[in-house]
Amino acid sequence: MVDIQNQKDLRNLPIDRVGVKNLRYPVTVLDRVNKVQHTVAWVNMDVNLPHHFRGTHMSRFIEILNAHHRELHIDKIGTILQQMKDRLKAEEARMEIRFPYFIEKHAPVSEATSLMEYQCIYCGVLTHRPDFILGVDVPITTLCPCSKEMSVQGAHNQRSIVRIRVRTNAFVWIEELVEYAEQSASSPLYALLKREDEKAVTEQAYARPMFVEDMVRDVALKLENDKRIVWYAVESENMESIHNHDAYARIENPKTIP
Amino acid sequence: MVDIQNQKDLRNLPIDRVGVKNLRYPVTVLDRVNKVQHTVAWVNMDVNLPHHFRGTHMSRFIEILNAHHRELHIDKIGTILQQMKDRLKAEEARMEIRFPYFIEKHAPVSEATSLMEYQCIYCGVLTHRPDFILGVDVPITTLCPCSKEMSVQGAHNQRSIVRIRVRTNAFVWIEELVEYAEQSASSPLYALLKREDEKAVTEQAYARPMFVEDMVRDVALKLENDKRIVWYAVESENMESIHNHDAYARIENPKTIP
Amino acid sequence: MVDIQNQKDLRNLPIDRVGVKNLRYPVTVLDRVNKVQHTVAWVNMDVNLPHHFRGTHMSRFIEILNAHHRELHIDKIGTILQQMKDRLKAEEARMEIRFPYFIEKHAPVSEATSLMEYQCIYCGVLTHRPDFILGVDVPITTLCPCSKEMSVQGAHNQRSIVRIRVRTNAFVWIEELVEYAEQSASSPLYALLKREDEKAVTEQAYARPMFVEDMVRDVALKLENDKRIVWYAVESENMESIHNHDAYARIENPKTIP
Amino acid sequence: MVDIQNQKDLRNLPIDRVGVKNLRYPVTVLDRVNKVQHTVAWVNMDVNLPHHFRGTHMSRFIEILNAHHRELHIDKIGTILQQMKDRLKAEEARMEIRFPYFIEKHAPVSEATSLMEYQCIYCGVLTHRPDFILGVDVPITTLCPCSKEMSVQGAHNQRSIVRIRVRTNAFVWIEELVEYAEQSASSPLYALLKREDEKAVTEQAYARPMFVEDMVRDVALKLENDKRIVWYAVESENMESIHNHDAYARIENPKTIP
Repeated sequence: MVDIQNQKDLRNLPIDRVGVKNLRYPVTVLDRVNKVQHTVAWVNMDVNLPHHFRGTHMSRFIEILNAHHRELHIDKIGTILQQMKDRLKAEEARMEIRFPYFIEKHAPVSEATSLMEYQCIYCGVLTHRPDFILGVDVPITTLCPCSKEMSVQGAHNQRSIVRIRVRTNAFVWIEELVEYAEQSASSPLYALLKREDEKAVTEQAYARPMFVEDMVRDVALKLENDKRIVWYAVESENMESIHNHDAYARIENPKTIP
Repeated sequence: MVDIQNQKDLRNLPIDRVGVKNLRYPVTVLDRVNKVQHTVAWVNMDVNLPHHFRGTHMSRFIEILNAHHRELHIDKIGTILQQMKDRLKAEEARMEIRFPYFIEKHAPVSEATSLMEYQCIYCGVLTHRPDFILGVDVPITTLCPCSKEMSVQGAHNQRSIVRIRVRTNAFVWIEELVEYAEQSASSPLYALLKREDEKAVTEQAYARPMFVEDMVRDVALKLENDKRIVWYAVESENMESIHNHDAYARIENPKTIP
Repeated sequence: MVDIQNQKDLRNLPIDRVGVKNLRYPVTVLDRVNKVQHTVAWVNMDVNLPHHFRGTHMSRFIEILNAHHRELHIDKIGTILQQMKDRLKAEEARMEIRFPYFIEKHAPVSEATSLMEYQCIYCGVLTHRPDFILGVDVPITTLCPCSKEMSVQGAHNQRSIVRIRVRTNAFVWIEELVEYAEQSASSPLYALLKREDEKAVTEQAYARPMFVEDMVRDVALKLENDKRIVWYAVESENMESIHNHDAYARIENPKTIP
Repeated sequence: MVDIQNQKDLRNLPIDRVGVKNLRYPVTVLDRVNKVQHTVAWVNMDVNLPHHFRGTHMSRFIEILNAHHRELHIDKIGTILQQMKDRLKAEEARMEIRFPYFIEKHAPVSEATSLMEYQCIYCGVLTHRPDFILGVDVPITTLCPCSKEMSVQGAHNQRSIVRIRVRTNAFVWIEELVEYAEQSASSPLYALLKREDEKAVTEQAYARPMFVEDMVRDVALKLENDKRIVWYAVESENMESIHNHDAYARIENPKTIP
């Protein structure tokens, strides 16, 4: 059969990225408490394509992935990127996986345990050297300082999402990034709160009002002070309880504090 | 050309519904203040298919719709259902359109105006006689009565969605259903609130705590007392500010109060 | 502390369903080949609430779930429903879980293996006796019979989704429902196809053109003939490659063939 | 009342972007045939915040928007960005609006007219000078060259999305970008095709097989040759009819052809 993908291409246009997207695959992730955790990922894989080739061989992405026998361990991404470069004869390979990750939490008073889910992302790019970004989206409570200050009683509060993305020079647990976000929040979230816990988180949130701007700054400060982190971006988005739109803030990378 | 859709089918299985789904179309809706409002809808249209026909003629759905010249007026749905029955030789025709609808609101103290968006749905089924359901999803604030009662200060609150669906024996404005939901809420939402308004809605919400159960009951009571409404379903869903899951309640149709 | 949820309610309106929604939880599912499979679910749980109680105790849903230690086995749903009825003093309990499920497939010629993902749903309701529905969404290829018949060469084809829901009187594997859909399709889908496989599936699809109406009828016939299945609904939805809307068909329950 | 947002902030961290997100608003867009078109947008607006301010005044974004009386004309975005800079005392202002846009199309043989919807995006950033990006997502058909070459009959094909983003030095119609994508495709899509049209588009697609790589290159060539376009990015994503994942390609900006 003719290998159409290997045909010469005369349009003289290299392609930055070509590959497969939105593939589902079971993965295993390192878990600080339980060693490993089974979860299910969305996977994107792509490579660059020089100007003289008409197409890439899409099935090779899947062959590389399927060599990992029903479950991909997340720390194999470096190896997979090298295999992508080799087998697809590319100068750059990229892989992105997104997955839900569960952490057992203890309610603040009753100590009742429950599982909280955090959406994570792990993205690797390999050219001459590898570049990895780890990310986690942490849902939290924020309580509005302005509403508290002005109002005789009460203050509007809401579920918010803090999105942290980091490049590191040493291993960082997902759990550590989650803690940075939850320690900065008006209150962490829990799947299970008994009555005494609900009282505690309500009062804690009221005592720690945070603007969306405060959230990104407080998380950024913690990332600034963590020597393992060499780049970061932090976003926060509040599903405002008094509006039907969201409040949003973002800081990327300054590392301004020596 | 052979008309494959008209071929005899020997499997002896009638099809309940066959048609087109997820079509986008501009629509015009009656607006209580501004007479008409232009918006953009998602449209589903389908009919039943007797057991002896192999297929329906999908293009006829679109022809019927496109006769409405770049913009469909929502009160034409009855006519369209009849055209669907006639042109597709069906015993039952169904059409569902979902669209965003905007209402100008005034902030409670400053009277500053802003537009709020509400997702609406209009669904018609025609067999021997027509059956219409009107629906609107109203985002509101709910403040937790339990959290308020137990806590020294503050109370958790959040954005919630109230979903109302009604069958009526007389005309009902979208605006009236929105009012039923907003009057029952701890507070309505607004796109624009100045500082004095934010104080007012915070204090109002604190003064009117509502469980998700309270919300569906209070809206249901208003629908019970509206003589034009002959059937209803009310759901409420709270994006809990202290959890990463939602609280949910639903009442359908009782009309228990004579 | 006052138990606000247990307060008397005077609105005289029972609530059909009240509970938690969109909770994420790790689950284990029976796997025909590998015994069990780890995956991650979306969970909804609710109960009815008599007219004289103001609220339900939402935390009890989570306590019941969390007793299952970091991973819920899907065949525990019957037990959980009974616990929900008991602990929440309800007459009706309902639980719905949705999860991705993976099946290893062999390409038709090369026999190359790869994992395909299928979205599943398992829904249980317990009043006096339990009622369970199992469902699976199977992505497949459909090739248009009309386009093939009319055109000198080629025929439009597309990815479609077949949604099967069944009530059964005996155990049915997810894998069996997947096979019913894939055997009815113009072609099954595969994550990995080598060149010889791509030729085979292209030619098979061209040889087996299927309208959306054909799909639901052929799957329905297989479900009619399976004595373990006592009720079913089948939908098919084609992401038409020549339109930007979808074609849709649905059959529910007839069991017309004796 | 204390102006909490104006309080001094001592964390010494400027914020790159702070504002409102996911706001819905009616907009008017220039239409090549009908002069203007009414549609409904998603709106994001944000500004930078210097390190010494604690918070921004979120309500001002909405006040600026609401000055546009129930409908925002898209060519007012430049003015709005300047107002955002002025009223929020910012060095950088950004606004992004996404909206569905309808174009009337004529079927290739019958000339039957129907409306097709295209998702558009318009994004402006103003620092010292303004920077605008116009984008449109065009759904099309792609037919696989490899599948056609290898198979005795037929070829797999599917719905694909081409995403074009451009910076320009002169006015460019949305309609022109749509044409670039549709002229490059195996076939454009239509909402309404009669039987003779379905035959024509099937045969055209079979005669013009296109890889996802071909799509991005052919669109990129057209953008290279359009002197008004000074930067571009083109993506294409195929909802593969033989897989449950998508094929993807992207080219950004080369302008390599002199």
